Parts: sequence; C-alpha cells; structure tokens
Amino acid sequence: MRLGFVSAILPDLPLNEVVEFAFEAGYSCVELMCWPKGRAERRYAGVTHLDVTDFGRRQADEVRRMLENSGVSISALGYYPNFLTPDEEEAKRVFAHFKKVIQAAALLEVGRVTTFAGRDWTKSVEQNWPRFLKVWKPLVKFAEDRDVRIAIENCPMLFTNDEWPGGKNLATSPKIWRRMFEDIPSYHLGLNYDPSHMVWQQMDYLKPLWEFKDRIYHAHAKDVRLDRERLDDVGILATPLQYHMPKLPGLGEVDWGRFLSVLGDIGYAGPVCVEVEDRAYEVSLETRKAALKQSARFLMQYMP
Amino acid sequence: MRLGFVSAILPDLPLNEVVEFAFEAGYSCVELMCWPKGRAERRYAGVTHLDVTDFGRRQADEVRRMLENSGVSISALGYYPNFLTPDEEEAKRVFAHFKKVIQAAALLEVGRVTTFAGRDWTKSVEQNWPRFLKVWKPLVKFAEDRDVRIAIENCPMLFTNDEWPGGKNLATSPKIWRRMFEDIPSYHLGLNYDPSHMVWQQMDYLKPLWEFKDRIYHAHAKDVRLDRERLDDVGILATPLQYHMPKLPGLGEVDWGRFLSVLGDIGYAGPVCVEVEDRAYEVSLETRKAALKQSARFLMQYMP
Amino acid sequence: MRLGFVSAILPDLPLNEVVEFAFEAGYSCVELMCWPKGRAERRYAGVTHLDVTDFGRRQADEVRRMLENSGVSISALGYYPNFLTPDEEEAKRVFAHFKKVIQAAALLEVGRVTTFAGRDWTKSVEQNWPRFLKVWKPLVKFAEDRDVRIAIENCPMLFTNDEWPGGKNLATSPKIWRRMFEDIPSYHLGLNYDPSHMVWQQMDYLKPLWEFKDRIYHAHAKDVRLDRERLDDVGILATPLQYHMPKLPGLGEVDWGRFLSVLGDIGYAGPVCVEVEDRAYEVSLETRKAALKQSARFLMQYMP
Amino acid sequence: MRLGFVSAILPDLPLNEVVEFAFEAGYSCVELMCWPKGRAERRYAGVTHLDVTDFGRRQADEVRRMLENSGVSISALGYYPNFLTPDEEEAKRVFAHFKKVIQAAALLEVGRVTTFAGRDWTKSVEQNWPRFLKVWKPLVKFAEDRDVRIAIENCPMLFTNDEWPGGKNLATSPKIWRRMFEDIPSYHLGLNYDPSHMVWQQMDYLKPLWEFKDRIYHAHAKDVRLDRERLDDVGILATPLQYHMPKLPGLGEVDWGRFLSVLGDIGYAGPVCVEVEDRAYEVSLETRKAALKQSARFLMQYMP
Amino acid sequence: MRLGFVSAILPDLPLNEVVEFAFEAGYSCVELMCWPKGRAERRYAGVTHLDVTDFGRRQADEVRRMLENSGVSISALGYYPNFLTPDEEEAKRVFAHFKKVIQAAALLEVGRVTTFAGRDWTKSVEQNWPRFLKVWKPLVKFAEDRDVRIAIENCPMLFTNDEWPGGKNLATSPKIWRRMFEDIPSYHLGLNYDPSHMVWQQMDYLKPLWEFKDRIYHAHAKDVRLDRERLDDVGILATPLQYHMPKLPGLGEVDWGRFLSVLGDIGYAGPVCVEVEDRAYEVSLETRKAALKQSARFLMQYMP
Amino acid sequence: MRLGFVSAILPDLPLNEVVEFAFEAGYSCVELMCWPKGRAERRYAGVTHLDVTDFGRRQADEVRRMLENSGVSISALGYYPNFLTPDEEEAKRVFAHFKKVIQAAALLEVGRVTTFAGRDWTKSVEQNWPRFLKVWKPLVKFAEDRDVRIAIENCPMLFTNDEWPGGKNLATSPKIWRRMFEDIPSYHLGLNYDPSHMVWQQMDYLKPLWEFKDRIYHAHAKDVRLDRERLDDVGILATPLQYHMPKLPGLGEVDWGRFLSVLGDIGYAGPVCVEVEDRAYEVSLETRKAALKQSARFLMQYMP
Repeated sequence: MRLGFVSAILPDLPLNEVVEFAFEAGYSCVELMCWPKGRAERRYAGVTHLDVTDFGRRQADEVRRMLENSGVSISALGYYPNFLTPDEEEAKRVFAHFKKVIQAAALLEVGRVTTFAGRDWTKSVEQNWPRFLKVWKPLVKFAEDRDVRIAIENCPMLFTNDEWPGGKNLATSPKIWRRMFEDIPSYHLGLNYDPSHMVWQQMDYLKPLWEFKDRIYHAHAKDVRLDRERLDDVGILATPLQYHMPKLPGLGEVDWGRFLSVLGDIGYAGPVCVEVEDRAYEVSLETRKAALKQSARFLMQYMP
Repeated sequence: MRLGFVSAILPDLPLNEVVEFAFEAGYSCVELMCWPKGRAERRYAGVTHLDVTDFGRRQADEVRRMLENSGVSISALGYYPNFLTPDEEEAKRVFAHFKKVIQAAALLEVGRVTTFAGRDWTKSVEQNWPRFLKVWKPLVKFAEDRDVRIAIENCPMLFTNDEWPGGKNLATSPKIWRRMFEDIPSYHLGLNYDPSHMVWQQMDYLKPLWEFKDRIYHAHAKDVRLDRERLDDVGILATPLQYHMPKLPGLGEVDWGRFLSVLGDIGYAGPVCVEVEDRAYEVSLETRKAALKQSARFLMQYMP
Repeated sequence: MRLGFVSAILPDLPLNEVVEFAFEAGYSCVELMCWPKGRAERRYAGVTHLDVTDFGRRQADEVRRMLENSGVSISALGYYPNFLTPDEEEAKRVFAHFKKVIQAAALLEVGRVTTFAGRDWTKSVEQNWPRFLKVWKPLVKFAEDRDVRIAIENCPMLFTNDEWPGGKNLATSPKIWRRMFEDIPSYHLGLNYDPSHMVWQQMDYLKPLWEFKDRIYHAHAKDVRLDRERLDDVGILATPLQYHMPKLPGLGEVDWGRFLSVLGDIGYAGPVCVEVEDRAYEVSLETRKAALKQSARFLMQYMP
Repeated sequence: MRLGFVSAILPDLPLNEVVEFAFEAGYSCVELMCWPKGRAERRYAGVTHLDVTDFGRRQADEVRRMLENSGVSISALGYYPNFLTPDEEEAKRVFAHFKKVIQAAALLEVGRVTTFAGRDWTKSVEQNWPRFLKVWKPLVKFAEDRDVRIAIENCPMLFTNDEWPGGKNLATSPKIWRRMFEDIPSYHLGLNYDPSHMVWQQMDYLKPLWEFKDRIYHAHAKDVRLDRERLDDVGILATPLQYHMPKLPGLGEVDWGRFLSVLGDIGYAGPVCVEVEDRAYEVSLETRKAALKQSARFLMQYMP
Repeated sequence: MRLGFVSAILPDLPLNEVVEFAFEAGYSCVELMCWPKGRAERRYAGVTHLDVTDFGRRQADEVRRMLENSGVSISALGYYPNFLTPDEEEAKRVFAHFKKVIQAAALLEVGRVTTFAGRDWTKSVEQNWPRFLKVWKPLVKFAEDRDVRIAIENCPMLFTNDEWPGGKNLATSPKIWRRMFEDIPSYHLGLNYDPSHMVWQQMDYLKPLWEFKDRIYHAHAKDVRLDRERLDDVGILATPLQYHMPKLPGLGEVDWGRFLSVLGDIGYAGPVCVEVEDRAYEVSLETRKAALKQSARFLMQYMP
Repeated sequence: MRLGFVSAILPDLPLNEVVEFAFEAGYSCVELMCWPKGRAERRYAGVTHLDVTDFGRRQADEVRRMLENSGVSISALGYYPNFLTPDEEEAKRVFAHFKKVIQAAALLEVGRVTTFAGRDWTKSVEQNWPRFLKVWKPLVKFAEDRDVRIAIENCPMLFTNDEWPGGKNLATSPKIWRRMFEDIPSYHLGLNYDPSHMVWQQMDYLKPLWEFKDRIYHAHAKDVRLDRERLDDVGILATPLQYHMPKLPGLGEVDWGRFLSVLGDIGYAGPVCVEVEDRAYEVSLETRKAALKQSARFLMQYMP
C-alpha cells in the first residue's frame, strides 16, 4: 500500500508545490483534482491541479518529468461531479469533461480515475437507475477502451438540506454496488472505498472488503466521529451533518489498524489517500498542511 | 400504570368482544380506533371500533354502560391520519373527523386522543412547518376548549417507498418535539411515546423521558428488532423496513424493564398500550389474539 | 410454535404420567425418548418412553388413544446414539434400532425423528466424512420412503475427556451443515437446532436461522452460561465443561426474546422443546419437575 | 431456593395479614422485621412484625401455630441498627435488643438473623476495625451458643449527606468480608447478599458468589438503576443517591437470570427475599402490595 | 493546540535545561512549577522552576530572553496548594504566594495560571462552599485586574487515606463547575481540564467539553488505567488508588484520538500538557525523560 | 523494556546484517534463532542465525565483538522444536541440540533461551504430563547449573490439520503454567509471553501478567485478528487458522497501550520482541523488513 492524499485540500498551491509538500510530509502519492477551471460549486470541489482541457502527449511528458525524481506518483486523477443532475446541460458538460480526465489518465499511464456515480437527489434509487445505466455504460466502455479503471467513491453526498433527501451519489451501499456490477459487468468499473461513509450509515466497514476485494481500486482515508448526544436528539432521519463530523484519520471511529489489517489480507496493494475535510483544520494553508502531516504520522503506524 | 392494547389489531371483533377479550387476556384498558367507516388506506388503519360520526350523549352512555363492570377502560380514542397530506380535500375531511373524535373523547370523559402530526412526505421538516402550525393551532385550541389532551405518536411513518423520503408524521425526534411545544405552547398537546421508533432511528429511548416527562400522555408498547446483517447491506439511507422489523414486546431490542423503570420514576401513571404490528403473528384472528396474550404475560413482569 | 420438553429428564415416569405432567406444567408437546431398553451409556441417554422394538399398528393406536384428549402431542421420537462409533458391532445395532424409531414415527404419523450424526471422536471431520456418507445416505433414503424427516441436533457431544478430541457428533457448525446438505441432497434431512451449543462454540446463534430456515425441523431450548473467569484460566482448547455450564432457559446467555423473534420471522412454526441438563436442578424428581415448570413460565413470555 | 420478601415494606399490616398476603402473592417465606417498638429512625427502619422484647416459648408457639398451615415460613428475623454508632447509649440498647432477636430466632427454630455490621460513619474502615471486633466477637459467640447464624447485609448504608462519608455499615466489599471472616473465624457469621449494592459500587456481583459460597446465608432481591446522565454530572464521589435509584427486581441492571443461575450452581438453596425500596411504588399500601406481586411474577421465571 | 508538559516531573533540572529538553523531545511549551522554595509537602509538589518570590521586570526579561529562540513557550505558571486547608496560617501563606504567581504571569505575559480550588477534606462540598467563595472572589478579582486567567484542575486530590474522605480540591465535577461559575461570574476563572480524573470517577470525559467550551483554558494529558479485578474487590468507596493507576497517555483508558478530536471541534487551540505521574517511569531522571519522549511520540499522532 | 524482534523472519540475512538492520529500524535487541543447520520442518522454523553446534569461547567472543558497538544486544537464543514428539529419535536430537543452545547462552552471557514445552499432539494434556516431567526436569537442572533461564512460549502450536487435535506445545494456559511451576519448582523455568495466543483462545491477556509476574522472562509482540464472520461459520472446534489471522502489532485485537501499561506496572523490564507472522507482509525480503519497521514505529508509541 502507498500513502497519498487528495489534492483538493491544497487549492492554493500549484502542482509542483503540492508534489514537493507531499514528499516532505512523508507521502508517496497524490490523487490529483482535475475539475474544469472555474468557480467551485461546493466545498472541496472545483480544484484544478491538472488542467485536462487541452491535455496531450506534451503536457503528459511535462508532468511526468516533474514527478520523475520527486519520490511521489499520481494515485489517480479525480473529478467528482454529479453525472445524473437534473440540469441536462450541466450533465452534458460533465460527461464531456470526464472523458478528458480519462484520456489524461491514459496519457499519464496512471490507469485510474476517481469520481461519483451521481444521482438526481430528488428521486429514489429505483427511479435513478435507468438513467444511471444509460449514462454509465458508454462511460465505462470509453474507459475500458483506454484501459483506465474508474473508481467510484462510496460517499452518499448527503450532508445538509441542499442534497436532501437522496444525496448526489448512488453508490452508497453493498446492495447497490452489487447491482451496479451486475448491470455493468466490466472490471473497469470499481470502488474508491472510504470507510468513514460506512460508519455514519451504521454499516460494517470491514465485511465489504472481503466481498468486493476485486473491485477496490482506490481508497480514501477519512475518519468520522458520530456524536451520540446529537444523534439522540435528531435521529438518523435528520440531515447527516447534524450528527456526525468528518475528521482526520485517528480522530474518529474507524479502527485504522483493523481496517488496514483486512485491506492487507484481501491483497490490496494500491493507494490509500488521506482526504482532509476536518473543519478544525481548515483555518489556513498552514493548518491544512499540518492536517496532512498529522495524518501521515498517524497512518504510518499501520502501513509499510 | 395500566396495561392496554391498540384495538386496530382486532378489526374483525365488535367493541364488546374487544372489551371481553381484553379482560380475559389480562388487560385493563384499550385504545379504541375511531377511523371513519370505509376502506382502510393502509395496514393497521381504517378500523372503527367506535363510530364517532353521530356520537352524542346517548351513544356515550351506551358505551359507558357496556364498560361499567367489564374491568376495562378506554385509554384513549385513536385516529392516525395524515393531517398535512398534499391532497387538500382529504386534509379537510381528516380535520373534520378528528374534531368528532375529540368531541367523543369529551363526551366519554376519556380526556385523551391519540394521533400523528402528519407530514407532506415530499417536503422537508422546514417546508412543512408553516402548514403544521396553521393546521394544528386551531386543533389544539379545539381540544383545549373541551379539556381533551392530544397525544402525538413519535412514529416517523416511513417504512417503504410509498412514504419516501419524509414519512407521514413530523413528530419524530426530541428536537422536533421541543420546537412543537415552543410554537404551540399548550399543555393539551403532548406525546404518545413509543420507544421502538427511537431504536431504529438510533436514538436513546430513555433520555427523552426525563426531558418530556410533563408531555407524555400515552405510551405504546411495541418492540423492534434491528437486523445488523441487513443494515450492513443497505445502510440507514435505505427505506427503514429493509433493516428493521416491528415485533411484540420482548422480541426486540427495547429493554422493557429499564423503560418501565424510568417511566415509573418520572411519575408516569397512565396507560401503556401494546401495539401489535408483528407479521409473524398476523396469520389469523387466533394468532393476533395469541400475540396480545403473550405481550401481556411478558409486560406484566415489569408492571404493577 | 409449540412448547415441549425432552422426556429424557423424567426417566422415572411412565409415558402416561409424562404426558399428564406435561399438560399440567403448561406444555403442549413432548419429544419422546426411544432408546432400546437396557443400561444407559451416559447421562441423559438410555431412556425408553416408547419401546419401538415391536411397535406395530396396535401399539401406535394405543399411544394415540392415550394422547387423544391429553392436550399434548408428540413433537418427535428421539434416539441419540453414535452412528459412527469405532465399535462396528454397536454401529450395526444402532443402525437397526434407528430404523425402528423411524418406522414408529411413521406409524404414529409424527413425521419427525431427532438424533445425532455421530462421529468417530478420535478422527478429524475430514477423516469421518466418507463413513458418514456411507451410513447416512441409506438412512435418509429409508426415512424418505416413509416420509419421516430426520432432525440432527447441533450438539458437539464434547464435554469431558471421554469424548476428546472430536466429540461424538459431526453436525456442529454451519460450514458442516452446508456440506451435509450438499452431499445428501434430501429435504428429509435437517436440523434439531439448539442455540446453546452455538454460544459456547463462540458462534452467532441467530445468523444461521436465516440461512438454514428450510432445514430447521425441530428446536431445543437449552441455555448455557460461559464463566469468563474459568475460560480465562483454561482457554478454548480445554475440554468444554471446564468453562461452561448447561442451564435452564433464562439462566444463561441466550437472548430468548431475540432467538424466538427470529425463529418466528423465518416462518418456523414447529416444536421448541426444553432440554433440562442443569445440574442445579437434578437432585430429585421433584426438582427436575420444578425445572420444567420454571422453563415453561420463562419461555411462555416469548411464545404464543 | 425459596422466594420471600422483607416485611419492612408492609408496616401497616399485622403479622398474620403479612403472612396471608405473602401466600396470596406467591411467596413462600418472609423476613420478619423485629425492631424495638417505637419511632423509626429512618425510612424502612423501625418496623416491628415480631416483638422480641418478651418473647418466650409461649409466644414462639403462637407464631408457629399461625404459620403452620399458611404455606409461608420465616426466612430470618431482621434487625438492622448501627452497632458502631458514636452514641454509646444507643449502642448498648442496640446490642441488648439484638441478643433478644437471636434468642427469638432460636426459640422459633428459624436459625438465621439478618443485620448490618454497623460503622461510625465519620471514621475510616481502619479506624472502625478495633471496635468492630470488640462488639462483634461476643455477639457471634452469643449466636453460636444458640446455633443461630448471623447474615450481615452488604449494604454500604450511604445514600445522602446524613451518612456521609463512610456510611453506617462496614461490610461492603469482598476485601472487607475476607478480613471479617479471618478476624472472627466462626461459621455463624456470614452474608445476607444483595447484588444491587455491588452494582452501584461498580463491582462484579457474580464473582464473589464463588469465593464466598459457604458464607451466603440469606439473599436480598433488590435491583438498582444507574443513571449514566446523572453519574456523568456528579461522579462517584457524590453521595450515591445522586446517581442511582433502588428499583424492583427487573427494573434495574441486575441480570437476575444470571444471578440466580450462579446462585444455583454454588449450591445455595436458601431464601431470596425481595426488598422493596422503589419510590415509584411507595404511594400507598396498595402500590406497595402491587410491587411485591410484580416482583414475585418477575422472579418466578428464574426460580423453581 | 500546542503540546507541552508539566515541569514538576523534572525537579532535578534547572529551568534552562528543562526548556532545552522540551525542545529536543518535541514539545513546544512547558507548564512551569512555581512552588515557594522549600520542602515538598507531597509527591509532585514543591517544585520551583520559577521562583516568584522577588520576581520583577528584570527577572521577567531574563526568562523571556532565555525562551526567545528556544522554540518553547510557557503554557502557564502552576502552583497547586490547598487554599482551603484547615491550617489558617498555611492558608494565608498560600494565598499570598498565589498572588505572586499571578503577578509573575502578568509580567511574563503568559496570561494563565494553573491551580486547585482547594478543600477542607474533612468536610462536605456544602460545608466548604462559603469559605470557597470568601477565598476565591478576591483571588479572581486580583487576577482579573492583571488580565490573568486562572485554570483550576479537575483533580479530586483524593488518592489514599491522607486525603480521605473529601480530597483536597472541590472542582471535581460538571455540577460543581457550574456552581463555581455561577457564584463567581468572571471569565478569568476557568478549567485546567484533565480527562483522566473523569475516567476513574466513572464520568464521560467528552460531554463536558461541549458545555464548558468557553471555560477550558488549559489541558492536562494524563492517562489512567482502571483495574477491574481490583475494583471488583474493593468498590468505589475504597480510596481511589486501590483500584486505579495514573499512566502515560496511551497506556490507559482515555481514547486520545477522540478526546483531541472533540477538543479541536469546540475550538480549543491552547496548550495540552503531559503530566507524568506513572510510577513505572519514575525510577530515575532518565526514565522520567523517556516518559516525556514516549508521551510526545504518542500524542503527536493526534495533534497538528 | 527493550524493543526487539525474532530473527526468524530474516532467514536470508547473515547475523551481522540482521544486527545492522535492527539498529537502523530502531530496535535495540534481537532474539536469535539457533536451529541446527538443515531443512526447516515448518514455516518460521529451521533458521540458524547462530550455529551452536561447535560454539566455544572463541565463537562467543566473535559474536560479542560484532555486537559491541552495534547498539543491539541479544534478547535470547531461540530454538522451538517439539521435545515430546512421538518420534523418539528426533526427541533425542532435539534434547541434545537444546543443551548446546543453553551452553551458548551461558557463554554469551545472554542468560535466556526461548522455546516450547512440546507435546505429543495426538494425546491429551494428562497423557503427556509424565513424559513432560521426565524430559524437562533434567533440562531445567541443566539450565540452572549454567544460570540460564528458560522462557517457554505460550503458543498452542495448533493451526491446521497437521497439529490437530492437541498442538505441539503444552504450555498454553494459566492453569497449565501453574501446574508446570508446581511440578518443576525452579525459577529457571518461566514464560515467553505472547498476548496474541490468549486472544484467539478467548482468554484475558492482562490478568495472567499479575499472577505470573515473577515468571515472565521474555515477551513476544505479535497481534492477531479474529474474523467473527469466519468464526461464526466454523466455531472454536475448527482448526484455529480457519478463524484467526496472525498480524503485525496494531493490526489486530491486542490493545498494546494497555498490555504494555500492565507489563510496566508488574515491573517487567526485559525484551519485547516483535514476531512477524503476517502473510500480508511475507512477499519478499523488502516487505518483511517493512513489517519490522512498521512494527517498531507502532510500538514505540507505548514504550520508553
């Protein structure tokens, strides 16, 4: 396993400084954000560490040169929009941009892109399914043709009233992953597994590792703290941020020793990328860097 | 405390037989269902053990006579429609009928009616609130004038896709009860407390007893079993019946000794009514009766 | 579900008195022991409440007449020898006698016999398997031909040094049951499920109910207490009675509300027979009867 | 084991009515309070169901006659004063009265008296010890001579500020019992074991049963509920009633099935007497009787 | 948050060596002990790393110069006597010396002093209260005038028989802190929060962080191990060191990830000072230094 | 305490490279494997970092010279054969070789050898005992004469069918250790304590530290993960590797902070040697080295 981080937390640094910092802080890879340049639509989105708009062999060579002796590699190219947004125009733009991300991944020989499945959050899973298949079958085919694996994160994208009730990502549970992989039977589709989302959904985060061991292509290391007092007051039907807090690894409920223990036993040897979304560390660039350093210190106890 | 049951489980028996059975099975009260005569709209609804349509002093006297030496009293008159349904016509009918239920309770000197707050299930709590106040302020005033207390059950009325996403009852959590009681500051509005709904919402079912001790006017004894295996597969964002099962008291996760222990310590001396919604006991009238007998046997260990 | 008990605990009473006592104590069925007349080979074995040696239509009619208005039925005919004993002569006798038990069950229209799979306790599961198949395939065929279902109890029959290391019954775990049902694919072979054996084997006693719901033909209600202090001293490699005690239902670790709750939900409607093996109640006939009365009182809280 | 109750909860009934009620409510013995006639010094004290002041053979015969066909026996004579009170005069009176209780027990052939060790609550255990030995050695000798066993209850007698800091009874923990039995090595001194006091002292209530199995001469069935919310606010250094509540069996934290299970396994066959100190049931004679009926219903599940 | 340690564990080193060691061992601040020179009255007391007797601008400048480029700052000046001791003379000396500590803190612009509330350990909280107010109101006023915040540690100062029964510090529980802050309504009075004392008092150590988030001015990082076996033998009424052991962070029951996680979320950004009171590390100066190094290694996983 | 590792995991490196690597990776001692040269009989066996065949003063001096300034010492000489194998020839060879290991330990002034007690795995503990005493009494005497302490590891040596049913080492539980130390009352016989074997045997791994504090001469730091899902399927009667996995410290169920906390409190100051048997790290020499580095990083949080 290789320790990395999601670059979205350092939007103020250019790519080369992200890479330098990664090395200094003890990371050996980075998941690079590849949003289209422009205004972010939500917190942690809209970051462009790699501009894939006009990305050809030349740009790829430049990036590779920069990384060559840096001690740091790219774990994946990341772009996490809502493919199934009710806004049809946006959906088209998103679709087109994602293809570019895939192409960039192919050119860079990274072989992996990370994203969400998307969801029309006003509709049930059932109601979303036909459109999910229609959108994703060609996308998976496109990735397959370039031998790039798509790793869908298991984040429900449901935090506050904006995403209520359904959230903006269908791929939230083993039951749904099973259906996804049955309906689109390509091994170029898999998971970007983040144990923290299992925790607040009250699910076991170890069991699925065994069942989906051939589908875990990327992993996020984010932690989460459930505050029982707050949950007791609002219940699971409330919007989730009313009772849980995303935290750095080690500051929440995930048993990282056990998680990485099972991850090792299923044969996973890929990247494990710290995703910083802990408000207590978002004051400044300095505190966000400190968050990454602390996370590396913590996780390195359990990783080779 | 007095042990009773919700009459909805015996729709095939007329009132006098319900009362006779109650006595034989060891119950000392019954919560009588008072739906308008006609077709049930959902399981457990539509039962009419007391027809309040033309209910005057004469009818009240009859009922009282029947109960006089039966050893059984009425814990409350129950009618659980959706006051905030998007169907405006239905809302009006419901409103009118509920007034009759209140009047009947006054005539019978029962002093208590049980119901739901209702909810437009397609909208958020916030979006429902103005209409909730508009509907409920006059209803509470109406009850207050007749000195009848309204006990709202804390059931989310969210089980399967039909009620997705919001469920058909707003009064699901301490946070919302607090708001309800602040916005409608009448002591004729209170709770019909059912611990089982707290369990599957992952909330403590004992703590609220202390905070709301002056507002608990009626209690339901229903149990629930959370199936961890199923929850691990679908998570809390799934429709709730995918991971929990309503069960008879003693067959689920509620610690009834502890629940009734705290109920006693907060000074509650009212009815505790068994609500049978356990599919394993719904085969026939005989099995439903058996369910009530078993529940009485079980609960009487913890009750005076 | 019907509450019964295993007749082995009342060896001093003749059949009619067993039946009378059962009715008085609140039981509606009895699992009748059918050992060949003679000396018991171990505690709880060797009891003959029904002598199947020369059991024909006449004997069957007599038994039926006796039961007719007793309020008590036969849950199963029970005979629990070791079919796979290294002593070949004994194995033959056992085989022959079991056939008679099956025939008696057919004549009595009980439809169910209860037993063990047996095991050469000096050999591994693997080493026993060929002989298990050789012995059991014809037995199951024999039962099938008479439409009698065989319910194998999941007791490891490993308590003290005598049965060390393997115990005298192969059918101890879900993994082994699965193999049994695959290798002998007849629905006339199933389980006599006792949750207590799962507890001291450190296994979940609820999960298998879902997987094997079509194979549970009979159930035993025995409880068990694990004494942590003793287990901490000897560990699971010690002979099991060094760290656990068989107890009456309610005096051990089985959560009977939950067990019977799931049993109901998988659709089980058969007998649940109390098996008394609690030394604290074995002083005299009177205390053994008291044990059965107490067990009925306890379990009837959770049963219809 | 025989189910009984402590008569202190029925001060308004004369002995014969206590006995009658006991039988009706399903009890087979009673622990009779034998305080000197006069004003009670604290809640539950000062009750005189048997006046031992002038108690001779004649009085003994009368009591025996009354009990003869009642179905109820005396489990013990109870008198729970503070033998080590700083008030020397009171100490003398107490000493003298206790001897009469012992004599009455001998005359009635009850063979058992129940009491406290006492404590000067302003002093440490160490400081109390010399006086404890001085007072108790002759008392034990006195009882030994009459073959009456003294069962000391393990209640700390520390509830509110009045008994702060030390409480009025030394015999609170295994460490202290061990010392007691070493320093006064007579088998006429033992314990009246109440599991509830172990619970709020955060001690295991099962382990001591094994170590002290030869010293448990009487048992109390009282339960207790620890309220975590309150404990979190005040901590264990607060006076104990700030965070716990005495409750009826089944309404607290004692696992009665497990407690009676181990009690059986250590060979205990004596009385188990319900001690009602649950404020929720102290409104009237009727509710106190209801408390005893409920407790019997509850405990009889686990007792022969 | 900044990691520091309490200097009391290095009484053999002069201030400059304490500071040097702090830096080498990875600490960025130190809580300096300011006891009057002379004999220590108890373990960990009586250490003088800063002599405040004649402490003026010149001395302050010297200290500041020494710290300037050391990479280490002062978290607080610490002096933990018993302000409410029954010895009136001692009380006066303590009062006078504490004022000097406050003045020194003002001169050094440290802004924070740490101490205990004190207690006459032979009296109840109630009995101590009037004197507590009389002593502390002027002290808080004195500190307020110099803009120095007083942080009271929540240690009960009750370990062995010497401090029995009440301990030497009133400020032990949320209930008492609330009263303190109501009766002395100045924001110059707050807490020096040590989670370990909550653990052995059986209290939640996370909940109070939310309620008292504006009052936590300093924090101690000490851990504690409760030994269940020992607690089972003596109970919570025994002197506390009979059942718990102070330990280094990570060697006890505090979940440091969770503690520091909540500390971050309530907005705490102050010092967290390791307090070494672990006998297993007190053999020599070398082992005490090793204890501080190990604690820094451990805590830095969870801190920025 | 000193951190070390078991050299068996680096069979491909010669002694001097093992020592160099130890130092670089942060270890201060190594347990050296001393198998006779030749073919390994099982995984992790057969490693010869020190050839004791012809080991005299000269060889000892050489080794000592090499270690002198290395910063690394020898924690013990290790040889873990089966002394009680049914193969008499092998037993003799083993016996002879072990004496040489003891002699080498004496020459090197290491003072400690580590091994197993052995067992004829086809026989019960009872049946093995006479031979155990016959073999071990002279061995202990031999070690005593050279003042070398023998530390027996508590590993059951039962993993798969080969060692079924008894395993190849008798010294598995406190009950057996007690018997060992009673029957061979020499303080030159003690334990090499590995907490992981307690975990999968379902035993408390802290309690024995108190009882056997004078007998713990060496400790292994191995962790273990119990997979509940697998255990639920096969139960404790299955061969142990069917339900547990040996893992690096921190990747399993041992609470290392607590374990090392108690180890410190009992006064243990000896070596704690990481034993790598985690298949996820056995791919290559590089991954095995990474395992040792990771283990040191992890454990150093809890060690001085």
